[in-house]
Amino acid sequence: MSEPTQTIEGWYAYHDFRTVDWASFKSMTPEMRQQRIESLQAYVRSQHSLEDREDGSFGSYLIAGHKADLLFVHFRKTMEELVACKTEFEKLEIADELVPAYSYVSIVELSSYLSKPGSDPREDPRLKGRLEPKLSTEPKHICFYPMNKRRSADDNWYMLEKEKRIELMTSHGMIGRSYAGRVHQIITGSIGFDDWEWGVTLYAHDPLEFKKLIYEMRFDEVSARYAEFGPFYVGHAVNEGELASWLNV
Amino acid sequence: MSEPTQTIEGWYAYHDFRTVDWASFKSMTPEMRQQRIESLQAYVRSQHSLEDREDGSFGSYLIAGHKADLLFVHFRKTMEELVACKTEFEKLEIADELVPAYSYVSIVELSSYLSKPGSDPREDPRLKGRLEPKLSTEPKHICFYPMNKRRSADDNWYMLEKEKRIELMTSHGMIGRSYAGRVHQIITGSIGFDDWEWGVTLYAHDPLEFKKLIYEMRFDEVSARYAEFGPFYVGHAVNEGELASWLNV
Amino acid sequence: MSEPTQTIEGWYAYHDFRTVDWASFKSMTPEMRQQRIESLQAYVRSQHSLEDREDGSFGSYLIAGHKADLLFVHFRKTMEELVACKTEFEKLEIADELVPAYSYVSIVELSSYLSKPGSDPREDPRLKGRLEPKLSTEPKHICFYPMNKRRSADDNWYMLEKEKRIELMTSHGMIGRSYAGRVHQIITGSIGFDDWEWGVTLYAHDPLEFKKLIYEMRFDEVSARYAEFGPFYVGHAVNEGELASWLNV
Amino acid sequence: MSEPTQTIEGWYAYHDFRTVDWASFKSMTPEMRQQRIESLQAYVRSQHSLEDREDGSFGSYLIAGHKADLLFVHFRKTMEELVACKTEFEKLEIADELVPAYSYVSIVELSSYLSKPGSDPREDPRLKGRLEPKLSTEPKHICFYPMNKRRSADDNWYMLEKEKRIELMTSHGMIGRSYAGRVHQIITGSIGFDDWEWGVTLYAHDPLEFKKLIYEMRFDEVSARYAEFGPFYVGHAVNEGELASWLNV
Amino acid sequence: MSEPTQTIEGWYAYHDFRTVDWASFKSMTPEMRQQRIESLQAYVRSQHSLEDREDGSFGSYLIAGHKADLLFVHFRKTMEELVACKTEFEKLEIADELVPAYSYVSIVELSSYLSKPGSDPREDPRLKGRLEPKLSTEPKHICFYPMNKRRSADDNWYMLEKEKRIELMTSHGMIGRSYAGRVHQIITGSIGFDDWEWGVTLYAHDPLEFKKLIYEMRFDEVSARYAEFGPFYVGHAVNEGELASWLNV
Repeated sequence: MSEPTQTIEGWYAYHDFRTVDWASFKSMTPEMRQQRIESLQAYVRSQHSLEDREDGSFGSYLIAGHKADLLFVHFRKTMEELVACKTEFEKLEIADELVPAYSYVSIVELSSYLSKPGSDPREDPRLKGRLEPKLSTEPKHICFYPMNKRRSADDNWYMLEKEKRIELMTSHGMIGRSYAGRVHQIITGSIGFDDWEWGVTLYAHDPLEFKKLIYEMRFDEVSARYAEFGPFYVGHAVNEGELASWLNV
Repeated sequence: MSEPTQTIEGWYAYHDFRTVDWASFKSMTPEMRQQRIESLQAYVRSQHSLEDREDGSFGSYLIAGHKADLLFVHFRKTMEELVACKTEFEKLEIADELVPAYSYVSIVELSSYLSKPGSDPREDPRLKGRLEPKLSTEPKHICFYPMNKRRSADDNWYMLEKEKRIELMTSHGMIGRSYAGRVHQIITGSIGFDDWEWGVTLYAHDPLEFKKLIYEMRFDEVSARYAEFGPFYVGHAVNEGELASWLNV
Repeated sequence: MSEPTQTIEGWYAYHDFRTVDWASFKSMTPEMRQQRIESLQAYVRSQHSLEDREDGSFGSYLIAGHKADLLFVHFRKTMEELVACKTEFEKLEIADELVPAYSYVSIVELSSYLSKPGSDPREDPRLKGRLEPKLSTEPKHICFYPMNKRRSADDNWYMLEKEKRIELMTSHGMIGRSYAGRVHQIITGSIGFDDWEWGVTLYAHDPLEFKKLIYEMRFDEVSARYAEFGPFYVGHAVNEGELASWLNV
Repeated sequence: MSEPTQTIEGWYAYHDFRTVDWASFKSMTPEMRQQRIESLQAYVRSQHSLEDREDGSFGSYLIAGHKADLLFVHFRKTMEELVACKTEFEKLEIADELVPAYSYVSIVELSSYLSKPGSDPREDPRLKGRLEPKLSTEPKHICFYPMNKRRSADDNWYMLEKEKRIELMTSHGMIGRSYAGRVHQIITGSIGFDDWEWGVTLYAHDPLEFKKLIYEMRFDEVSARYAEFGPFYVGHAVNEGELASWLNV
Repeated sequence: MSEPTQTIEGWYAYHDFRTVDWASFKSMTPEMRQQRIESLQAYVRSQHSLEDREDGSFGSYLIAGHKADLLFVHFRKTMEELVACKTEFEKLEIADELVPAYSYVSIVELSSYLSKPGSDPREDPRLKGRLEPKLSTEPKHICFYPMNKRRSADDNWYMLEKEKRIELMTSHGMIGRSYAGRVHQIITGSIGFDDWEWGVTLYAHDPLEFKKLIYEMRFDEVSARYAEFGPFYVGHAVNEGELASWLNV
């Protein structure tokens, strides 16, 4: 058995993709529609208020393509809060028009060799910011996809020696670092929580950087031989006011 | 032909995942909603009453993510009772709002080398507790996933010699044992009953232990080379009162 | 090209899985519901009347899990009758509440080396009973799954020599025979008729025998290397009266 | 690069599978239902009138199993007509009750070595009949399935030399010829038009011949190593009057 | 790690496939239907007006088969505009009857070795026309499919040396060039944006050319060994007036 890589976990993450039932929205009176939009705005504000208390973070995004229209990202301290924030959302009247399209349950994850030996990584301010990331509307663009490491006969990540895995991941990290300042990434682990092993959430000022980075990485052995990719979602952040006016028909 | 591993079976198991139709729930009068919730509470109590007679066990769980909202786990003495408890549930009025999302039909399974030769394992009190597990709300968190053993050309579990399989499973069991007191597991077999070969149900006080355990096991040869995983579900137990207040909108 | 195995075909088979729309059922007046149930009972009786004329056979089963609630098995003399019995069922009023969940179109199939050379197997009473099986409610439990023989590079059933296939199937048959009296099986072929190559229908007094048999067979080279399995369904027979009271809400 | 096989194309083909919404049909007044059935009969007649002008051909079939109830096959001179005949059908009132279940877009295809060098195959009366096939209700039974040629590492059809492909296809054709008079086949190509590479449409007086032929071919190297199969549909032809009475509830 | 191929990107592309809800359309009054059709015409005109300002391009197509009825292709300068044009469309009343069937999010992509070193490819008029393609109704026929380059053990595109990839792509390009004037293609890249790596959009006067070209390419090593194909869609362009009359029932 190969030695597992050590990981440090931060906040739990819930990526909640929604498709708008525009037909239902259009058939409402303007008052009903306005009431629903206002209740969503109140919900968004309450989610952001977590950030003042450092109890979590929240972001709202519009998504391109037919797979989803909206993405809400929740970072929370516990799994129970992830369940609770789904329920709280579903009990909003407007949830009837924001139909679940996809979701992802995971937890922010760092490789432990980033922390100083003997120290508590949660007290290390550099790591704390990565384990408990604060979402903002800048950089504006977002890309999300889940992935696995392959376990086929010839390309079995989990049968590689730890040294080989570290060597491959270091090369992979070098590409990521060459995009520093252009693409920011949050890795969340989901083994035991959802159907893929990891979720990758990327942020950029220019969405073309997502394509450039992921394409370049695909030639890297870690991706070329060992990665399996799930669905890709791309879009951009909206604040509470933009979300409200976007929903108005 | 390789010699099959002997197994001992206990209670039949039905994992019943449900998605709440919140829109329908919201559109009801409070009286209708209350009536439905009370009928569910009565159902839950009747399921738990099986436990007093040692005729089965029952648990209710909230589930994270969009794949399901609720999980009811039923342990029963016969397959016919599994069919009957599905029907009984569907005939509740509230079943119209608790839409089937996924389910799993299986039976509690132990490897026979755990029992003393010549003894009836059902009379061995240590094994009886494992074959006829009593569900409780502690430890609170639950993780469920179905799985297969792989049968591909290079990695074919069922073509391995029994000795090799025992050696690999022993190593696998060692990891499990290192989580004793932190993760409790119930293995159910489903060959001939459902679309995967086994169901794995894990319980823990801290849901992060699910991720730690399954991640560590993935480097073990049994998982790395021979496991195929189905969907993963994670959540936490609720008692009758918590379930009722959770359903109230 | 390897020489194909000869087969003898008997009755055409239609496995018709249904999910009950309980919500619709509950919303009816008791009179409407009763009328529908009675029309289903009349349909069931008319199907069974085929058996008196040796024109076919019919069985009704309750199914465990969310994939289906009911299974109707039809054995008929011609493919056109399979189409006709589907239509006849759909035209029943109660068919609106018995939503198609899955189905399987096939024909009872025996390997020809079971028959005496020079004789007409349909006149051989031993074979006739297997080619034109009469369904009953005993043994009570049923298991159905479709399957393929694998055609991958290393494990390609259809590239094996006939002698090798016979040798492997003989070993497979030995396991089956060791379950004689405990598990009864009907093999139906579906190449050209449905999406898998064969359907397997098993009957047993104790449903645990399904698991025991299929698990044991999985270690046999025919299954371990060459079998691909579709969905599994398990349940038990009901007679006309049991079906009627089961449907009553 | 291996040299492609030359092909000759004939009529465009549209296989249009439909599921009947019997519940909606039953809920209509007899007059509404009759009006719909008559409009479908008029449609069927107009499709058949193409045949008098040699502008195409049309067939109606009942299909076994839950995947579809009806199949309409259209042969037309251009792709635009395929689009137009779909639209024309959808605009019929009865189309609301004949829900799309599956479809296939392709074009009749022959291998060019069947034609005499230097001649225009469309003027060769033997080939013209195969490139522009006239559908009839005899032979009555139909089988349709789409398929690919495999492109996996060990079994890659498109990497074989042309001579090897011809040799393999010749052996395949020999089996087909041994069913002459019992099974009639129309091959349609769909690369660039639909999700599989070819559609196979078979006709027979006895549907068991479909099973016999496809089973025998499966042992042939072309199928055993190089074929990937899509869904299979089986049924039988109905004329305008049979279709009308079949639809009557 | 193999050196990635350089790419130049042009306009963002949104392929928006729709299925018409004809039943809903038929149930409207002629006035309601007319109003919806006119609002779609106004939308189409506003999309085409982008072309005058060189801010994008737009095309409308009818699609064969059951997978979709309509395709709208949008080329835009930014990803945010892709999101916005989806929303703008959904807010049209007629969008309730034009149900999303599939979509594709990508960006026009050229391999950089097409441009002169040291020059800005966006200023090269030859390249500008390819990076910012103007859609028209001629050539009339369209074919769209997404694809990946394979990453399996034996056939891993991303593990090939750059020289080998260039050699293979050059051979591939030769086939394409032999169809010059008959098939026009637009390649769009979608890594990070959608579930496949590239989208291929082809135009031709004769749709049979799609089949001829793609079939011929399939024998080319790049396709034979390294291509994975998604769904195929085929159809033809319609202008605003043809679209309006097509929608009229």
